Amino acid sequence: MERVLSSKGAATRQRIIEGAAALIRERGVANVSLDDIRAATSTSKSQLFHYFSEGKSDLLLAVAGHEAEQILADQQPMLGDLTTWPKWQAWRRRVIEKYDAQRRRCPLSALTAQLGMGNPATQAIVTDLYDRWHAHLVTGVKALADTGEIDPNTDADQAATALLTAVTGGATLLQATDRITYLEVALTAALDDLRSDARPRREASAA
Amino acid sequence: MERVLSSKGAATRQRIIEGAAALIRERGVANVSLDDIRAATSTSKSQLFHYFSEGKSDLLLAVAGHEAEQILADQQPMLGDLTTWPKWQAWRRRVIEKYDAQRRRCPLSALTAQLGMGNPATQAIVTDLYDRWHAHLVTGVKALADTGEIDPNTDADQAATALLTAVTGGATLLQATDRITYLEVALTAALDDLRSDARPRREASAA
Repeated sequence: MERVLSSKGAATRQRIIEGAAALIRERGVANVSLDDIRAATSTSKSQLFHYFSEGKSDLLLAVAGHEAEQILADQQPMLGDLTTWPKWQAWRRRVIEKYDAQRRRCPLSALTAQLGMGNPATQAIVTDLYDRWHAHLVTGVKALADTGEIDPNTDADQAATALLTAVTGGATLLQATDRITYLEVALTAALDDLRSDARPRREASAA
Repeated sequence: MERVLSSKGAATRQRIIEGAAALIRERGVANVSLDDIRAATSTSKSQLFHYFSEGKSDLLLAVAGHEAEQILADQQPMLGDLTTWPKWQAWRRRVIEKYDAQRRRCPLSALTAQLGMGNPATQAIVTDLYDRWHAHLVTGVKALADTGEIDPNTDADQAATALLTAVTGGATLLQATDRITYLEVALTAALDDLRSDARPRREASAA
């Protein structure tokens, strides 16, 4: 028996994506079929193909986009308001807690592995995630520079890149080894570096 | 027609692994069958199952181990001799060059994605790689501390962790975005930090 559907197509589509995401988080992407998703979201076959015309790969891409969004959402409201040191520290704690709770189970990388990182649509989702994440960090570094909490000459783009790389590397190493230390140490070091750095970085180690 | 085989089993096994690795690098793991590997390495079916009794998964694991080894070998002789700043800089350049040449094509992660990071044997290979890599970096940091090129109180374990995380994060971001900047900036920042840091890291940002 089908539920009465929302009159808005976008809402229905979102509902299917969220239902599929929950099912995939629970069972793993390899163990979820389109029929499972139809059953869990009370959706007919024709509805599913209306919203995801290419079928499963189309739906999995939409779920990957949703999980990418979730990675940023999990860091809010801290990530969007990195204006003081205590707020940066609160963000750092949130990031470590999130990954410590997640351990090896990264919903996005399970999906991108399934879809293939060679797939341009997968690459676009992941690149967009990193670009938006980086932009938040740049804004936060600039806020500290503007209020004089760090050297006003700090290169915000490079500082944000080092921070994002610490988190990404920490998450990759966590997934491989089940150890949270890499993330903790690298993110803490990158933040300490931001706090103390008063030199232009590139010159210091040009060889 | 089969080649005359080496009398040493280990050499034959190694030859099969190297042949399989080359084929997989060329065509991608999804496009290489056991028959392709038999043909390319002039190996009989019974030989293949003699050395890899579980068949393809067994052989792919051995190839993953070989590719993990290759990641360390590609950084030599620098990685094993990080005793002065110029040697650290040479290592940094080698790492960036290697990944810049490789771009999205990481032979090890293609294999681990195929084998599944949930597989304990895959996890063991990757964890061992990171442990050995980390140990090389610890030795290098201690050498700098011993000769007074950096603060003798530097925590070598933490410094090595931050460096390894920068490289891993840079490689992950390169694979996702095809941009080398993350690796360049994060590794350079981590090295600058090592050079300039004179404070115990943990205290500085405990919140």
